[in-house]
Amino acid sequence: MDLRVTYHLAGSDARDAARRAEDIALEQTVELAADAVPPAIAERIVGRVESVEPLSDGRWRAVIAFNPVVVGGDLPQLLNLLFGNISLKPGILVAAIDWPPELLAALGGGPRLGIAGLRALAGAPDRALLCTALKPLGLSAAELAERCYRFALGGIDIIKDDHSLADQPPAPFRERVERCQEAVARANRETGGNALYFPNVTAGAAAALERADLARRAGCRGAVVNALPAGLDAVRALGESSGLAIMAHPSLAGAFFHADHGIAPEVLLGDIFRVAGSDAVIYPNVGGRFTFSDATCAAINDRLRRPLGEVRPAFPVPAGGIDAARVPHWVERYGADTILLVGGSLYAQPDLTTAARRLADQVRRHSHG
Amino acid sequence: MDLRVTYHLAGSDARDAARRAEDIALEQTVELAADAVPPAIAERIVGRVESVEPLSDGRWRAVIAFNPVVVGGDLPQLLNLLFGNISLKPGILVAAIDWPPELLAALGGGPRLGIAGLRALAGAPDRALLCTALKPLGLSAAELAERCYRFALGGIDIIKDDHSLADQPPAPFRERVERCQEAVARANRETGGNALYFPNVTAGAAAALERADLARRAGCRGAVVNALPAGLDAVRALGESSGLAIMAHPSLAGAFFHADHGIAPEVLLGDIFRVAGSDAVIYPNVGGRFTFSDATCAAINDRLRRPLGEVRPAFPVPAGGIDAARVPHWVERYGADTILLVGGSLYAQPDLTTAARRLADQVRRHSHG
Repeated sequence: MDLRVTYHLAGSDARDAARRAEDIALEQTVELAADAVPPAIAERIVGRVESVEPLSDGRWRAVIAFNPVVVGGDLPQLLNLLFGNISLKPGILVAAIDWPPELLAALGGGPRLGIAGLRALAGAPDRALLCTALKPLGLSAAELAERCYRFALGGIDIIKDDHSLADQPPAPFRERVERCQEAVARANRETGGNALYFPNVTAGAAAALERADLARRAGCRGAVVNALPAGLDAVRALGESSGLAIMAHPSLAGAFFHADHGIAPEVLLGDIFRVAGSDAVIYPNVGGRFTFSDATCAAINDRLRRPLGEVRPAFPVPAGGIDAARVPHWVERYGADTILLVGGSLYAQPDLTTAARRLADQVRRHSHG
Repeated sequence: MDLRVTYHLAGSDARDAARRAEDIALEQTVELAADAVPPAIAERIVGRVESVEPLSDGRWRAVIAFNPVVVGGDLPQLLNLLFGNISLKPGILVAAIDWPPELLAALGGGPRLGIAGLRALAGAPDRALLCTALKPLGLSAAELAERCYRFALGGIDIIKDDHSLADQPPAPFRERVERCQEAVARANRETGGNALYFPNVTAGAAAALERADLARRAGCRGAVVNALPAGLDAVRALGESSGLAIMAHPSLAGAFFHADHGIAPEVLLGDIFRVAGSDAVIYPNVGGRFTFSDATCAAINDRLRRPLGEVRPAFPVPAGGIDAARVPHWVERYGADTILLVGGSLYAQPDLTTAARRLADQVRRHSHG
């Protein structure tokens, strides 16, 4: 079965659009003009333009079928095939992907835990989960651990490092992880709960694997990774090597989210991040500090959860300015298979434990699996 | 010394622009509203907006100084700081970076070989170098090796794998590298030359390191990496672990190159790719299949070669539709510290050795150090 990619293209007329689609099929595979390609390779390796149809906005929808052999089993080569060189040409958007099952398997098979696995870790079989971000960068490890403790005591399910925490002098990675994990474990002993601490292990590849290993040995069950800065394959590699649940952060992803150029948010965050092995994917919710629409958020949720061969569904994690007071609304809207990430609006309240508890009570009241 | 980043911003007036600059300074460091940040952290960690001035096009130039402690020594965290979350906001461009020397060192110190080191490998102390791409994907390892041999015989300095070659069934990595390197060595024995074969080692991190190691053991002296699909830190890690010269490919980079959003090409390809350790950086030349302007190409060349603390200069590698017949023009225009990458227009000629030799003769005639 082919890897079928739907591109949206600029084109002055049907003929121009067809020419551009043909150009993508060549550029992304053999990177040669059609007349310099041996016939056997033209047949097997060059993308095959299946259709070019007008869109309502004057652009064109082209479907190109690629032989999955072009990707092999490499996530970086998947990105390269989808949008590598053509990122340097104007007016091209990756709008949808149909995945051949054997390619999904070759790329690693997706999330190791997925929604069901993360629910088991959190001891929450059917309700929406709550997540918060440990911040700000600049606090000491002890101060961050104290915040961890309070959030866990208040009933937050997942306390994740802010995505800007790396291995910086104010709170070096090892000390931060050990102290924060200990603080969450202490809170769990007091509450009988299952709060989880997910450190941010983003780093160069070798360092990220070491950090994930250290986190696992400290007792953590998951980690955050900034998927694009680290390289998309880090998601797969970290999950595989450490066994941790992987929550992917969309840092840098906005570079791809132009209406007429890039990779559609639901494809990059919903499909590709999931296929790469994310158990949960953070995205900027509508109405917050960022600019996603209702429809984009719904599409991301759908891509993360929909049936996709043998690939497990992953949790959407809407974030980026969710007001604690509006959490019941979002639970209602997005359903129970959602992790709501509430950061700033908890920090704006005088006592973190009380703020967290109020929020956790609301979610437990409003969420029915 | 601070890491000083110049952003170009949208803004309805000076006050709005100042507010947006302040927002970046917070978002990229503590990710909290100003009033939720402890004073000591506001002082040390939050970016400091140094200036906001109007640009001629109605946008604004803001200079923000960041404490390098925020980056630590991680290239992924550098990307995250420069453009991570704000990639998800409209109208923001990273236009320039002033690098503190201690940060350059912490990030790995840049190219291990640089221009001088690559010249030594190629046995070409003062002229422009010639590079071609081994393609297409779909040929067998033996067929690619035969092309390698012909290019080397004709006097091409660097024969690099096409950036879409990974570890695919038609020419599995190991077999391809061993055969191609052997073919180039054989040509060198015949010509007394120093042609180099650079395989594409792009893969997930562990696999990329293995491939680079295999390449080195096969006798290769350099490698190509698709820096963004692999993760930017792969450039540093591969150079460090293998000792190979690293030629970085701009696959996916075009996502960042919008006039009013992203990272300016000369900053991403000229500064950041160099700082990450690229000995040579491929970019799409003006007038070819892609859309860079004269000014952008000149700016990239300048950023790759200019004095930058202890960081070695790197070779610009203009590419993407350079006509073999125009090579003397580009040598004249860009100067000797350039690697000209000529692909398709060699393949359009009936005999690769003759085509390569004609080109190599021209470069040797036209290039004076």
